[in-house]
Amino acid sequence: MSIKIGILGYGNLGRGVEAAIKQNDDMELVAVYTRRDPSTLKIATEGVPVRSQAALESGKEDVDVLVICGGSATDLPVMTPKFAAMYNVIDSFDTHANIPTHFKNVDDAAKAAGKVGIISAGWDPGMFSLNRVYADAILPSGRAYTFWGKGVSQGHSDAIRRIEGVLDARQYTIPVEAALDAVRSGANPELTTRQKHTRECFVVAAEGADKAAIEEAIVTMPNYFADYDTTVHFITMEEMKRDHSGLPHGGSVIHSGTTSDGVNQVIEYKLTLDSNPEFTGSVLAACARAAYRMNAEGISGAKTLLDIAPAYLSAKSGDDLRAHYL
Amino acid sequence: MSIKIGILGYGNLGRGVEAAIKQNDDMELVAVYTRRDPSTLKIATEGVPVRSQAALESGKEDVDVLVICGGSATDLPVMTPKFAAMYNVIDSFDTHANIPTHFKNVDDAAKAAGKVGIISAGWDPGMFSLNRVYADAILPSGRAYTFWGKGVSQGHSDAIRRIEGVLDARQYTIPVEAALDAVRSGANPELTTRQKHTRECFVVAAEGADKAAIEEAIVTMPNYFADYDTTVHFITMEEMKRDHSGLPHGGSVIHSGTTSDGVNQVIEYKLTLDSNPEFTGSVLAACARAAYRMNAEGISGAKTLLDIAPAYLSAKSGDDLRAHYL
Repeated sequence: MSIKIGILGYGNLGRGVEAAIKQNDDMELVAVYTRRDPSTLKIATEGVPVRSQAALESGKEDVDVLVICGGSATDLPVMTPKFAAMYNVIDSFDTHANIPTHFKNVDDAAKAAGKVGIISAGWDPGMFSLNRVYADAILPSGRAYTFWGKGVSQGHSDAIRRIEGVLDARQYTIPVEAALDAVRSGANPELTTRQKHTRECFVVAAEGADKAAIEEAIVTMPNYFADYDTTVHFITMEEMKRDHSGLPHGGSVIHSGTTSDGVNQVIEYKLTLDSNPEFTGSVLAACARAAYRMNAEGISGAKTLLDIAPAYLSAKSGDDLRAHYL
Repeated sequence: MSIKIGILGYGNLGRGVEAAIKQNDDMELVAVYTRRDPSTLKIATEGVPVRSQAALESGKEDVDVLVICGGSATDLPVMTPKFAAMYNVIDSFDTHANIPTHFKNVDDAAKAAGKVGIISAGWDPGMFSLNRVYADAILPSGRAYTFWGKGVSQGHSDAIRRIEGVLDARQYTIPVEAALDAVRSGANPELTTRQKHTRECFVVAAEGADKAAIEEAIVTMPNYFADYDTTVHFITMEEMKRDHSGLPHGGSVIHSGTTSDGVNQVIEYKLTLDSNPEFTGSVLAACARAAYRMNAEGISGAKTLLDIAPAYLSAKSGDDLRAHYL
C-alpha cells in the first residue's frame, strides 16, 4: 500500500515533486490541487485528477500527505498552518528570518489536529541546514561557511527583468574559487560578501534600449548587486532560450574546526544540481514519507529536517539500512 | 548540570573522546576506566580518576553515558552488550558485516535495562553512513561511491609491520583523482578496486634486511595490497618519526543520480581530517549527548546515527537551531 500524496501548486517545484514521486515505488500522486481553473491545467502524470484548492478545504480529501508548493512571501505563511489543521503537510518555506514564527504557527495547528507538518524542507534551508547542525555538533570549536552556486538565482533574475528595456534575464551566482580554497584549507578566513561570490548576468535588451544604462542599473542595484563584482552580458532571445533555459544550482557548506591545538578537521557538503526545483522536489518527497511514518506512530506537530531521524526518510527498512548502508 | 561521561579504554580513540569532552561545556569527564592497572595510567585531564574496568561491573558507577573505546574484533562484541545492561553506552563498532548481529545483542540488553546503546558511531560507519542514506532517500535513481583517504590505514600499516625485517611502517590509502573526477561528473562509471585507490607505504627496514624481498612481500600480499597499485618507500626511523607520526584520514561519499531524463544531481560529503581518532572521538561525544537526552525522554534500545534526529546531537536548543542554523 503506497503513500497517497497530493501536490498543491503546479509551478517548477510542484513539477519537481511530481517527478520525484515517479521514482519512489512506495508513494503515488493522487491529485494536483490548484488555485487556477483545474480544467486549464494539464499535468505530466497520466490519469491523475487536477482539482481545485477549494476541494482541500473540506479536510476530506483522501491524501496521506499534502506537499504545498507555494511561495514563501505570501502563500506558505497562510497555506501551511491552514492545511496542517487537516492533513500531514510539507513545505519549503525559505524566508530564514521568519522560520521561528512559521514553525510556531504550523506547530499549533498540526498538534491540535494530530498531524505532522514538516516545514523548510529542500536544500537551503534543508540539507544545508542539516549539515550546518551536524558539523557544529561534532566540531563546536569551528566555523561554518556557506557558498552558493554556480547557479541561477530566480530572485536576482526577476530583479533584472524589472529594469526598463529588459526583455529577459538570467543571473548566475558564482562562488569565488580562491575563497573556497582558503576555507577548505582550514585557514578560517574572514571573507566579505564581495570575496565570497560574484554575479554574472545574461540580459536580452529591447531593440533600441540603452544598454549602458541597463548595465549601470544592474551593477549599482542595492542589496542585489551593489556589494558584488557583477558582470553583464547582452545576448539575443534565441541565445537565452538555447543556453540558459535550465535551473542549475548547488553550493557547499564547509565547516572547519579544531579538535585540539593545531589539529584541523574540515567537513564539506557539496551539491551540484542540474535542476534546483527537481532536487528540492526530491527532498520534499522524502519528507512526505517521513511525515506519513511519524504520524502513523502517533507523532504530531511541526518538524524540520533537524527533528527527523534519517531512517524515516528512506524507503528501506532499518534492517536493510544496517546491513547495507551503515 | 552537565552530562557525566565515562571513557572505557584509553588508546588513541579514548584520548580523542577526552579531547572532545573538553570542547563541550555541557559534558564532563568523570572517570577513565581501564583493563590495565589504573595506577600505571596517566591521563591528560587533571583531577579525573582512573579506575579499573572491574569497578564498572557493579553497575553502580555514577556515569550518565559510558563511551566504550575498544576494538571491533574481540572487545566491543562482548563489552557493549554487557555494559548496555547497566549504562547508556556508545561504541564505534566498525566490522560492517557484523553490525546486524551486534545491533541485536545491544538492543536486547539495552531494552531490558531501559538504557540507550548507540553503536557504530564515527565517520565510516557513522557520518558516511548517514550521507549514504540521506542521498539514497533523496535520489533513489542513483548510485553512491565511497572513497577513502588520503589517510593512514592502521590495519594495512600493521600488516606491513608483521613482515620479517620491517621495524616500522605507515600505509596511506589515496583516492585516484581521475576516478573522483569521473564520479563527480555524474558519469556513474564502473570502477575496479585498482581504479579507485592506490596505496603508498613508508617502511623502516632492519639493518641488512632484504629490501627487495620486503617490497615483494608487500605488493603481492593478498587482500591487503595485491589488488592495488602499491608503491613502497624505504625511509629511516628518524624520517618516520618526523614525517609520519600523525593519523590523518578522510574521504568522500559521492552520490550521483537523476531526477528525470538526463537531469543529473550530485551530492558529495567530504572529510579532510588531521586526526582520525580525534574526529571519531568528537562524533562519539556528540552521540553521548544524544543518548543521554533520548534516554531522559524514556527511549531505550540500540540506535545508530540513522535513528537519531540530528537536533539530539547538538548542544543548542531547538529554538536556537531554527533561528540560526536552519
